[in-house]
Amino acid sequence: MIKNGDKMDNDIIEKIIKTAHHIYDKEMILGKAGNISILDESKNFMYITASGTDFKTLKYEDILKVNINDLSYVSSSDKIPSMETNLHIYVYQKRPDVNSVVHVHSPYATAFAFSDKKLRQLEGFGEITGEYIAEVDYYPPGSKKLAKYASDALKNEDKVLLKDHGLITIGKNIDEATLLCEYVEGIAKTQYITHVLNL
Amino acid sequence: MIKNGDKMDNDIIEKIIKTAHHIYDKEMILGKAGNISILDESKNFMYITASGTDFKTLKYEDILKVNINDLSYVSSSDKIPSMETNLHIYVYQKRPDVNSVVHVHSPYATAFAFSDKKLRQLEGFGEITGEYIAEVDYYPPGSKKLAKYASDALKNEDKVLLKDHGLITIGKNIDEATLLCEYVEGIAKTQYITHVLNL
Amino acid sequence: MIKNGDKMDNDIIEKIIKTAHHIYDKEMILGKAGNISILDESKNFMYITASGTDFKTLKYEDILKVNINDLSYVSSSDKIPSMETNLHIYVYQKRPDVNSVVHVHSPYATAFAFSDKKLRQLEGFGEITGEYIAEVDYYPPGSKKLAKYASDALKNEDKVLLKDHGLITIGKNIDEATLLCEYVEGIAKTQYITHVLNL
Amino acid sequence: MIKNGDKMDNDIIEKIIKTAHHIYDKEMILGKAGNISILDESKNFMYITASGTDFKTLKYEDILKVNINDLSYVSSSDKIPSMETNLHIYVYQKRPDVNSVVHVHSPYATAFAFSDKKLRQLEGFGEITGEYIAEVDYYPPGSKKLAKYASDALKNEDKVLLKDHGLITIGKNIDEATLLCEYVEGIAKTQYITHVLNL
Repeated sequence: MIKNGDKMDNDIIEKIIKTAHHIYDKEMILGKAGNISILDESKNFMYITASGTDFKTLKYEDILKVNINDLSYVSSSDKIPSMETNLHIYVYQKRPDVNSVVHVHSPYATAFAFSDKKLRQLEGFGEITGEYIAEVDYYPPGSKKLAKYASDALKNEDKVLLKDHGLITIGKNIDEATLLCEYVEGIAKTQYITHVLNL
Repeated sequence: MIKNGDKMDNDIIEKIIKTAHHIYDKEMILGKAGNISILDESKNFMYITASGTDFKTLKYEDILKVNINDLSYVSSSDKIPSMETNLHIYVYQKRPDVNSVVHVHSPYATAFAFSDKKLRQLEGFGEITGEYIAEVDYYPPGSKKLAKYASDALKNEDKVLLKDHGLITIGKNIDEATLLCEYVEGIAKTQYITHVLNL
Repeated sequence: MIKNGDKMDNDIIEKIIKTAHHIYDKEMILGKAGNISILDESKNFMYITASGTDFKTLKYEDILKVNINDLSYVSSSDKIPSMETNLHIYVYQKRPDVNSVVHVHSPYATAFAFSDKKLRQLEGFGEITGEYIAEVDYYPPGSKKLAKYASDALKNEDKVLLKDHGLITIGKNIDEATLLCEYVEGIAKTQYITHVLNL
Repeated sequence: MIKNGDKMDNDIIEKIIKTAHHIYDKEMILGKAGNISILDESKNFMYITASGTDFKTLKYEDILKVNINDLSYVSSSDKIPSMETNLHIYVYQKRPDVNSVVHVHSPYATAFAFSDKKLRQLEGFGEITGEYIAEVDYYPPGSKKLAKYASDALKNEDKVLLKDHGLITIGKNIDEATLLCEYVEGIAKTQYITHVLNL
């Protein structure tokens, strides 16, 4: 149960709202999929978007405060936390340097995850950790298996594609994680065009 | 004849105008095609965009109030209701839970409707009702046959592609129906890119 | 020589500036190509964008008033009229119902003009005058031959593709001509996607 | 060492910030790649974006003043100049008519640089200097070899593609160099679509 933890941090909530609208404006989300979280300073609570949320109109009531130790949560509405709540928590447990997780379905990166082609890493955003961006095998959205294997892959990476599903990025703050989404989407678009020019 | 029904609901009209501009900004409309309606609380009248309307500059005079029982209407100009008025009415008659119908020609969804490929349903917006998004055979725009067969298809679906024509979505309100258009367009774009990556 | 005609119509100039910025925002222009004109009420003078104008920053000094009978002009700077001035004039001479001409290089329509594929006419903007959008053979930009053959093609059409060059639309006012550009660009994008889905 | 040169020119800084945001809005940048510079009136100092800068949020502290003779610089933060600082300096040394250099990774132009296809020059932005846009062989980002060979190529051109890397444009001011980026990106998009239509 959340105890002495029901006070909401409006600065964090404001950052999530602003980011959700930005992700919507950049067309990196589909329908009501996608989720964002920020870990608070105590590292005991994370703020995460609700299940089935429309990023276009995302507002205060669509963000919940979740105790990452026992999954109890504070909600200002009847909404429940994102179905990928476990995935976010596992990441924070395995990556103490990470304070934000962003999961999107941006078209070019997601199409690579649905295709038989791999997405190459390029210069332009931090260290190149391998020839291709890591890809996690398909497990059903919201499953504990997806949470486990995706968070494992994120032990040594800041970005992974989820096979037949979408993209997850992490960062020391929400701006870094969001920019990394845009970066992956951008290199996916560039490599897509290159692929077609070479047809 | 409309009786005691000539008072216009400005809130509904405002919602249609805002949505038309949003659909234009998102480039989901072509020229003067496309139409939007909202059913009012009495369920006797719908507000619908006029025939041959430019969504970019859509304004008060471009929206008409139509009696869905006898097709009589109130217009604040010399405009007449959308050529797809019958289609909207039939939907409201067959789907008592629906209060808004949106018809667009968004490029990716429409291209699927013109192509020999089917559009798969994906996670991200409500229940998955089948492997592919339902497609209604071609009938001329504005025809009673199109109105009949499209509204029949919408008995069990919230979205259908019109073969060689465009996309229709419905919802309990205009925001849901509009977001569903954007969702279908987004998964169409993603599947298009996947198709090309696999070439 | 312009006589008693050197007074500028600020309403017309404002419309051209607003349209140029809109065309830039919609990414229908490349670099400093493209030109727009409006015929004034007297039908003796047209206002046209200057040669080599950047639509992004188009301003008062980039628009000139040209006497369509003798080609004399008023300029508030050292700029000269668009190299396609003859083409605009010939259109006004051959189409007394037309008061605006818009010439853009929008990517999808222009790519059709450079390709070996034809662009089909679709529902959504006025009468369908044939199976395909008319295409004018290649003549050098700015040449009298281009002006002659393009204006001839526009006797019976409101839109033509210029082979290996771009798109011209005309209308009873600048808003109609501009929306027609957007419409042609939109159906070109849709047909492009359809072409690729059928690969 | 910078002497008597530590006063910053706020007009120049403002222009770089505005341009960086514009380039971000136009999606011509990927992640933290890309760099922009302006030469000041004395021709001894250039203002350049810092290494690893996010153009979306680019601000005063992300711009440094560099002495182009000895590479000493003034920074209002702990940031260091772009890794392509040498390239910018070599361009200013070889092109006395040039006062701004812009380097982006716009998707279509960059995809041409990664592909086996060449990008044709088209009408619409200054003189046509050859059939194709010049391409500089691949050298590692930030290397002196890249700086040397790219600046050599820019002796007679205002735009070059960097093989497997991106695009550089130059101009008499930052607005010209930026518009030239947009122009090259636009003709790359158009030629890409043409390529696909001809498949």
